[in-house]
Amino acid sequence: MIQSIYDSPLYKMVNPASLAFYGASNNFGSMGSIILASVKGLGFEGPIYPIHPTEDNVQGYPAYRSLDDAPETPDLAVMVLPTAIVPERLEECGRKGVRHAIVVSGGFKEVGEEGRVLEGRLKAVAEQYGIRLLGPNCIGVANPYQKLNTTPFPYLGRPGFIGMASQSGSFITQMYSYLQRLDLGFSSAFSCGNEANVDIVDGLEYLGACPRTRVIALYVEGITRGREFVETARAISPHKPIVALYIGGSESGRRAGHSHTGAMAGPDRLYDGMFRQAGVVRARSVIELFDLCWALGTLPRPKGRRVAVLTDSGGPGVSGADACSRAGLVVPPFAPETLERLRPLVPHTGSINNPVDLTFHRNHMDFYTRIPQALLDDPETDSLMIYFLMPIEMMTRALEQMGLSPDEARAKSLEIIEHQGRTMAELKAGTDKPIVGYTWRSLDEPFIQTLRGHGLPVFPGPERAARALAALRDYDELRRKVLSSGTD
Amino acid sequence: MIQSIYDSPLYKMVNPASLAFYGASNNFGSMGSIILASVKGLGFEGPIYPIHPTEDNVQGYPAYRSLDDAPETPDLAVMVLPTAIVPERLEECGRKGVRHAIVVSGGFKEVGEEGRVLEGRLKAVAEQYGIRLLGPNCIGVANPYQKLNTTPFPYLGRPGFIGMASQSGSFITQMYSYLQRLDLGFSSAFSCGNEANVDIVDGLEYLGACPRTRVIALYVEGITRGREFVETARAISPHKPIVALYIGGSESGRRAGHSHTGAMAGPDRLYDGMFRQAGVVRARSVIELFDLCWALGTLPRPKGRRVAVLTDSGGPGVSGADACSRAGLVVPPFAPETLERLRPLVPHTGSINNPVDLTFHRNHMDFYTRIPQALLDDPETDSLMIYFLMPIEMMTRALEQMGLSPDEARAKSLEIIEHQGRTMAELKAGTDKPIVGYTWRSLDEPFIQTLRGHGLPVFPGPERAARALAALRDYDELRRKVLSSGTD
Repeated sequence: MIQSIYDSPLYKMVNPASLAFYGASNNFGSMGSIILASVKGLGFEGPIYPIHPTEDNVQGYPAYRSLDDAPETPDLAVMVLPTAIVPERLEECGRKGVRHAIVVSGGFKEVGEEGRVLEGRLKAVAEQYGIRLLGPNCIGVANPYQKLNTTPFPYLGRPGFIGMASQSGSFITQMYSYLQRLDLGFSSAFSCGNEANVDIVDGLEYLGACPRTRVIALYVEGITRGREFVETARAISPHKPIVALYIGGSESGRRAGHSHTGAMAGPDRLYDGMFRQAGVVRARSVIELFDLCWALGTLPRPKGRRVAVLTDSGGPGVSGADACSRAGLVVPPFAPETLERLRPLVPHTGSINNPVDLTFHRNHMDFYTRIPQALLDDPETDSLMIYFLMPIEMMTRALEQMGLSPDEARAKSLEIIEHQGRTMAELKAGTDKPIVGYTWRSLDEPFIQTLRGHGLPVFPGPERAARALAALRDYDELRRKVLSSGTD
Repeated sequence: MIQSIYDSPLYKMVNPASLAFYGASNNFGSMGSIILASVKGLGFEGPIYPIHPTEDNVQGYPAYRSLDDAPETPDLAVMVLPTAIVPERLEECGRKGVRHAIVVSGGFKEVGEEGRVLEGRLKAVAEQYGIRLLGPNCIGVANPYQKLNTTPFPYLGRPGFIGMASQSGSFITQMYSYLQRLDLGFSSAFSCGNEANVDIVDGLEYLGACPRTRVIALYVEGITRGREFVETARAISPHKPIVALYIGGSESGRRAGHSHTGAMAGPDRLYDGMFRQAGVVRARSVIELFDLCWALGTLPRPKGRRVAVLTDSGGPGVSGADACSRAGLVVPPFAPETLERLRPLVPHTGSINNPVDLTFHRNHMDFYTRIPQALLDDPETDSLMIYFLMPIEMMTRALEQMGLSPDEARAKSLEIIEHQGRTMAELKAGTDKPIVGYTWRSLDEPFIQTLRGHGLPVFPGPERAARALAALRDYDELRRKVLSSGTD
């Protein structure tokens, strides 16, 4: 394990002060140009030195024929070049004193024998000059805190708390908009590509040391340094959750992964055991990977698997309870004193048993205040899962019928929503139990956005909410096991 | 089985020419008033007769003290009244000659002994007058073709092809906005409530005969008439797909379902066997229920389980193949002639094997034309699953860099998107293999909306896309089994 984040080979790749850029031009269709546009787009503040064989100016930056001509030795070289010339250009970097490079270019070992030979040459150059390189065949790095984005996709959304190391670049770049929609974001993220010299274990180690990373996401197709992975993860997982998506367990996934990065993927249960030993929570899909990061990065760990479910609608209550059961949680009866508190708050057509079903009710504000408070105080449950509905079109229709203009009705609805969001935030602040929401409404709706803005994760459907709650508990149990068994 | 849709007890409930309305007032907060506002809101064109003890006018309609005073006998009575007075009001309807009623009011057998007695009285009145009634404790009916919506939620979206019978009202009304976001809609939908006199088997029978219903969705907590259910479903399923979500299989789901509608839910595997015998495809969540309806209502049945996967990105290809495997599909090698056709279209850093990975490529239009055409012509695969990405913010950024103004770039991007959508629609029109898409982008994005508008279902994540393809095949196999085994 590294002593400090500055010891990581990734530190200067994720936090460079200056860049050399190979492969960008003024032809905006090429991959290199697209990536340089991303770097510009996010507003990287350090100097950028494009290297170009003929142009004097590339996208507004003075360009150089060779790095030899550049006025300083940059922290990092980014290469988006034809495969065959990458080794010689890396040599140029080495001569100039550059010690970190990101090689986006593909065409190395993932395409067969010829590429394997080229990758060998690349590694030899890196070793000769002491260069640490990410890739080849990788998508680069995003660090929104540093305004750095060496990937082809414009970075969207906010700087966040999810640190990601991935064996697929797609799951970095193609998730920017997905995370933005959930108001989430990366602390930093990178893909390892062919792992010629820096691998996913290095990535894990860096993220473990990164103070902006609250939870680590891994996308794994195959781990070469298994023992180091387990040791590193065990050192990190007790104090920072790690979630991994491993694909390769199914026959078709394995074949596809092989042609993708050239890694040899082991069988599913081997990885399952390795993750468990390492204290790593396993996700089963990309969507679940980020769901679990969301929950683990924002919610307290529950004391057990017992869930209180709150709805104002029968079917969603049944689905919520069913989803909890299938996720390995229980929906137990409440303590007698909880039932006593609920009785005056719930009409006789509803249910005060778990799941609580308020049904249609005049004092609907109780749904956001006294009822969930009673459930959070219940000694027989460890967490709370709430169904959120509140269609804004119903609220505004009702207000219009009461005589408000459409604009007034809309404004009043938003005011009510904001009030309910604040109320939920207060409940959350006053408890050490996790609270999650579920809905089938759009996550872009004002009500759901407001709840999220107040720190409440609301998932599409009870299955995802229940799985997130279960993962909080899974993590707690894995963590205890790692702590109690000491280091290997 | 009914001979004609007109023989169904539900016909006049779903297609009434006129309504009596009990329980609405000019107090817009009450449930009855909210429902009448929904009826008005969707623009029901027949006469509406509110019955009210004191008001002369309810929400703009002349009101009557009793149905005796109304100028005609309406097709249907809708009742949103305090539990205790429902039986006597139903009697008033019977005397007037009304033969169909929807009883929204709750407080009957689902709340215990007292309610059970009241429900008995209600049933006795219905029998005495030959009234068929939906409910009690149900949410009513939506039939957008008839502009009828007797539910508390404003109907959103278009008239569609999904007919739904549900043992939870929530899964009718609370899905309006969900379906609207997917450009789907109900042909008609209703909840059965306590099934005092009309049950889910009657609902299934109605939807089987409904010409606007292309696929039937059922939400089941417990079926009382099991044998009739199987017989009815077997008569329908060979020519119209039926998808059922049964909850009650897990311990918590069963308890919750019991307090919800008072039905006794049987064990999971019993229902599993019953659905299989009946030719009914089973869904595992609400979201999956509608995913499968979407696929089954719009796509051809594949000849087998072999899928061609097309991506322009490695990780999503791996995930796509993995999702197929886990859904019981296979991702086999292509025929040699297919590989020959693909070779010139895919760069050497990509992959012409299944999943095809175009990677970054200049002739990206091939992704929408020649490549999928080669895959549709491949004799070794039965369906096609495509990953869709195309972030509009990247396209507009590139066009702006080429000198277009932001408005021009946006307009040009939308034009390209529309062209790609049309191209996909042409591919779809020229094949009898199903095509589905998957993405992690927002379903509200112009590109995804355009594809959907051209008839291509695009699912969030490969797991849902693969499950939908598998369900098409499951349905085909179930259907054959029902047809070959004849009637019981």
